[in-house]
Amino acid sequence: MSVLKAITPVGNQLRAAAQRKIDTKTKPLGALGTLEDLAVHMSCIQADLNPQVRQKNLFVFAADHGITEEGVSAYPAEVTAQMVRNFLKGGAAINVLCRHHAIDLRIVDMGVNADLDDHPLLIRKKIRPGTRNFAVQEAMTRSETLDALVSGMEVFLNSHARKPMDLVGLGEMGIGNTTSASAIICAITGIPPAQATGRGTGVDNKGLDHKTKVITNALAFHRPDTADGLDILQKIGGYEIAGIAGAVLAGAMTRTAIVLDGLISTAAGLVASLLNPHAKGYLISGHKSVETAQKAALDHLGLKPVVDLGMRLGEGTGAALTMDTVDAACRIMREMASFDEAGVSARS
Amino acid sequence: MSVLKAITPVGNQLRAAAQRKIDTKTKPLGALGTLEDLAVHMSCIQADLNPQVRQKNLFVFAADHGITEEGVSAYPAEVTAQMVRNFLKGGAAINVLCRHHAIDLRIVDMGVNADLDDHPLLIRKKIRPGTRNFAVQEAMTRSETLDALVSGMEVFLNSHARKPMDLVGLGEMGIGNTTSASAIICAITGIPPAQATGRGTGVDNKGLDHKTKVITNALAFHRPDTADGLDILQKIGGYEIAGIAGAVLAGAMTRTAIVLDGLISTAAGLVASLLNPHAKGYLISGHKSVETAQKAALDHLGLKPVVDLGMRLGEGTGAALTMDTVDAACRIMREMASFDEAGVSARS
Repeated sequence: MSVLKAITPVGNQLRAAAQRKIDTKTKPLGALGTLEDLAVHMSCIQADLNPQVRQKNLFVFAADHGITEEGVSAYPAEVTAQMVRNFLKGGAAINVLCRHHAIDLRIVDMGVNADLDDHPLLIRKKIRPGTRNFAVQEAMTRSETLDALVSGMEVFLNSHARKPMDLVGLGEMGIGNTTSASAIICAITGIPPAQATGRGTGVDNKGLDHKTKVITNALAFHRPDTADGLDILQKIGGYEIAGIAGAVLAGAMTRTAIVLDGLISTAAGLVASLLNPHAKGYLISGHKSVETAQKAALDHLGLKPVVDLGMRLGEGTGAALTMDTVDAACRIMREMASFDEAGVSARS
Repeated sequence: MSVLKAITPVGNQLRAAAQRKIDTKTKPLGALGTLEDLAVHMSCIQADLNPQVRQKNLFVFAADHGITEEGVSAYPAEVTAQMVRNFLKGGAAINVLCRHHAIDLRIVDMGVNADLDDHPLLIRKKIRPGTRNFAVQEAMTRSETLDALVSGMEVFLNSHARKPMDLVGLGEMGIGNTTSASAIICAITGIPPAQATGRGTGVDNKGLDHKTKVITNALAFHRPDTADGLDILQKIGGYEIAGIAGAVLAGAMTRTAIVLDGLISTAAGLVASLLNPHAKGYLISGHKSVETAQKAALDHLGLKPVVDLGMRLGEGTGAALTMDTVDAACRIMREMASFDEAGVSARS
């Protein structure tokens, strides 16, 4: 895709100056830990020693998954649509956290298996009411895959055109999608399914064994090209995962900082970075999921999660919390006094 | 002190109902991790299944330390007063984070070695311009110790009377105070000084050995009564540490949730819980310090730090970040829909 050529890497021109700026603030060297790393990273992404987060947005990409026919989830598939309606009514965890942190929230229907009424928070990009069961066939057609990826880009770019976004969180809803995300992470990082498979919304030990087998068999059946993000998405992906990957690429194109959430959005970030490695530089890992495959994906991306609160909900909840931390880090960079400005003695 | 008898333990009457309430929210069981624990804890502290954080306050208790004569800090002692002036001008990290999270900030002069001008953010409670050098004599007199403790209570209770506080963070500033705090933690928990001594604002290896020796010798010299918080404060404490301990006790008296910060405020929390064990129930550990003695103190208190961002600044910066997480947890408890309310299917 020609659009991918529009991505330029995060520049390092300002890195040394940004580090120097944070080092001269009135605190011992490095004493603000991760906040300092985020401040320097945001300076580089925004190419500005005074990084700002004026506008925060979070998109929840939602879709259903044919793989649920294999019994891989603790919850029935209709929960995807029910939770989307919960998002639209404002009652889910992600609604509460976005309200709390003044984040503009939109829900993107990428492939929910239900007819959803129009709603101001809803963006309609339904490709199909759920993927096909990738245990027995390819999850999507090539045309659907491209459509989903481009739809994710469009969602991002339209919102950015209406009101420029400084920080964007990417979350998801889709019963069955931890199975797809784990399979994607196995394909790209090479870790074995037994290591990559977690309990998702809460399957028991028997369910975990079964889920591992489903992933192992699907990878053997499809043999996705591990260097080809589109092939991986088409064979074992999901519409919402493709949508998030598209949004990541649009973020990198517009030089916007992107905050990933847990397992699924991290898998999507991994796919995006396979489509264009320069995308990596714009990514911030929102939170440490209890799903083990996420760590393999983050290691592959060279990212460390900011928040570790033992969460495993998805929706973008970890991203929402981290977005506020990133915002705080930018304010530290802009507002905190230096030793000189404050007339504070340096160390002896 | 008769005032200590006014503390009642955090009730457990609502704990089961609070746990049930969070368990029926639209999310897999436990999927919001620490946010759920905080929501239940706040329900118990406020004796209300709809806990609220309407008013957040943070107090930075500041004082100087005679122990700096022993060369235990990487920064000169005058930095205490310089940083207090930085706080009053709004240029320190704690100012930025309190502005970011809408926390009312006040600086309490408990014993800064400088004449500070009146300022709307400054509360004057100076006991003495710094403690005595506890390497060679007791840090404070018994009367000063009580005065500092009661002053901390007064600061809290006056603020609470003006505008009731729902959540209070306690931070500190005082060059030399990690030496005092580490010694206190050794005395109360019994861990050896070699294990309890950290780099503070950044002493090198030689400085670390020296600091360990200073603490070892001081403990041998004073032999504080390890069951008597007042004796410990008097011999090896600091005015700001006593002030924080007083504020913790006032928080428990008024059934207000208290967020500790790093090493120093955790040491003060430990002293407060020695003066009245019921105080423990009102404490939330703000963040995991890189100072190892903090862990021993938290284990003793039965607390786990909420935030882990590799910070070691003090001032209340970790508490400020955690206070916002506690606020978010309360909103989750109040605003999130249950499975029934949202019409979402339970797990199969």
